[in-house]
Amino acid sequence: MPELHLAEAATPPLGRLTIVGLGLIGSSIARAARRYNLAGTIVALDRDEAVRARVAELGIADVVTGDPQAGAAETDLVILCVPVGAIGAAAAELAPYLKPGAIVSDVGSVKGAVVAAIQPHLPAGVALVRGHPIAGTEFSGPDAGFATLFNGRWCILTPPESTDAAAVARVRALWEGMGANVETMSAEHHDHVLAITSHLPHLIAYNIVGTAADLEEATQSEVIKFSASGFRDFTRIAASDPTMWRDIFLNNREAVLEMLGRFNEDLSALAKAVRWGDGEALHAMFTRTRAIRRSIVAQGQETAAPDFGRPRPPEA
Amino acid sequence: MPELHLAEAATPPLGRLTIVGLGLIGSSIARAARRYNLAGTIVALDRDEAVRARVAELGIADVVTGDPQAGAAETDLVILCVPVGAIGAAAAELAPYLKPGAIVSDVGSVKGAVVAAIQPHLPAGVALVRGHPIAGTEFSGPDAGFATLFNGRWCILTPPESTDAAAVARVRALWEGMGANVETMSAEHHDHVLAITSHLPHLIAYNIVGTAADLEEATQSEVIKFSASGFRDFTRIAASDPTMWRDIFLNNREAVLEMLGRFNEDLSALAKAVRWGDGEALHAMFTRTRAIRRSIVAQGQETAAPDFGRPRPPEA
Repeated sequence: MPELHLAEAATPPLGRLTIVGLGLIGSSIARAARRYNLAGTIVALDRDEAVRARVAELGIADVVTGDPQAGAAETDLVILCVPVGAIGAAAAELAPYLKPGAIVSDVGSVKGAVVAAIQPHLPAGVALVRGHPIAGTEFSGPDAGFATLFNGRWCILTPPESTDAAAVARVRALWEGMGANVETMSAEHHDHVLAITSHLPHLIAYNIVGTAADLEEATQSEVIKFSASGFRDFTRIAASDPTMWRDIFLNNREAVLEMLGRFNEDLSALAKAVRWGDGEALHAMFTRTRAIRRSIVAQGQETAAPDFGRPRPPEA
Repeated sequence: MPELHLAEAATPPLGRLTIVGLGLIGSSIARAARRYNLAGTIVALDRDEAVRARVAELGIADVVTGDPQAGAAETDLVILCVPVGAIGAAAAELAPYLKPGAIVSDVGSVKGAVVAAIQPHLPAGVALVRGHPIAGTEFSGPDAGFATLFNGRWCILTPPESTDAAAVARVRALWEGMGANVETMSAEHHDHVLAITSHLPHLIAYNIVGTAADLEEATQSEVIKFSASGFRDFTRIAASDPTMWRDIFLNNREAVLEMLGRFNEDLSALAKAVRWGDGEALHAMFTRTRAIRRSIVAQGQETAAPDFGRPRPPEA
């Protein structure tokens, strides 16, 4: 899908937008909301003093605060951009100060298990519309964000059917205003799909980098030196934020273990083909996987450039 | 390690250089040898007529031929750039026409098992100096190559101790002339190191992409749509040439299965931590893997740019 060429909204669709947690995602939302005029006032709420100081320096929010009341009062939409394990506590802290008609959303990578952590805290008249933008890099913190992070990417919303349609529409409008394509599905289905597209790949990447780190004979220095032969791709994913990923695995364990089971079955078959020298089976397996990448590129979810477009030495 | 700023050699160190198989690697060697004036005459030998026609069109070789005798006669250095499983046959075909003092080399990703396929074919006075450049992309064919592919990358040579030192020096000079850093080690050690830095990562990537392709509930179209959450990184590796990779696994099976065994042990421990909700263990495992990526970036084997430097939508 093509990137959108976004115009600023004439009147901001949100009066006051509160972003809780100014990491990669939160700070990107702040930048995009400013850039595309999606909120009259952008409030950055973070309990880490160093992060607040940096956000103020960067000038990406209108209000920077560590106080839940100041962050929540009079806001139209709160987006919780903290690790999945911290979402419940963040919601509980803000809940007493939310006005009726306010909307609470988040960007967490697990949807099922976490609803129970938020919903009970919310007062009547406050809608919960959870979301998950499929976008990011391996970097963390307020300096890592950028305004176009969501442009041309998908954002999944998982509102139960009973959710106020107007609230869902407002959250959808925010994401579309940042250039994202929005799809809605059940929390359970989300967690199932993300287990294979995201959680299992991260588990595998963390694992193989760990295996390499433990080798005696092939020393670590050789692994690092010769990493360009494939290994270095895995290290990017395995450099992602440890707290965020710990929380994802703790909260989506059933879907992850189910996908891991399938992965292991397939890996046993592949290992058997290697052991028995079954070249025909290997070739067949290695051929069908190419088509998937072609589709991802065709749908605009990946660059067509070789090697992810990694910089090449110039031909001098 | 910094990229080299290469100057053309004043006099080419090789009179005649024959490249057998004009794929990604072979055509990159042809381009680099021309660019940096490393051979008086560059001969491209390929048995595929379509490849020969394209190489002639691209103008990256002085002589383009499908005839082993024309390719081998009077040449100083032959580099076999064909899949590992085809190296023995290619060497056998050329051997009768090689002059005494000629050198035979290759670029194969497996070193141990394949020596036996080449050495018996070579006449007396012809040295075998095997090599493996740690460089490439997921693309194949003569159009995919480029002159700076080896610049700042490593090339491993695996000559037995009995090999003529002058022959090793000439092969080393060719790679250094193309900007590569050269290291020598035993074929056995090479295969062991590459099993973890390259072969196992490819096996894992092919496997997870295959697992995703087989899912019923989460349809393929959703996997493709939401691939940007991690999965798409794996599809790049799993888009590599199937014949090349079949041959690698068939020829380095012991080292690959040994590394796979370690990987599986670690994965079982990780799965157990997920199942039992051991957040502390997960966090510890996810923390130590970050350092390895930092070292790879520090040593110039990886870009420091987020997301491999994938193109971002411009802030319009």
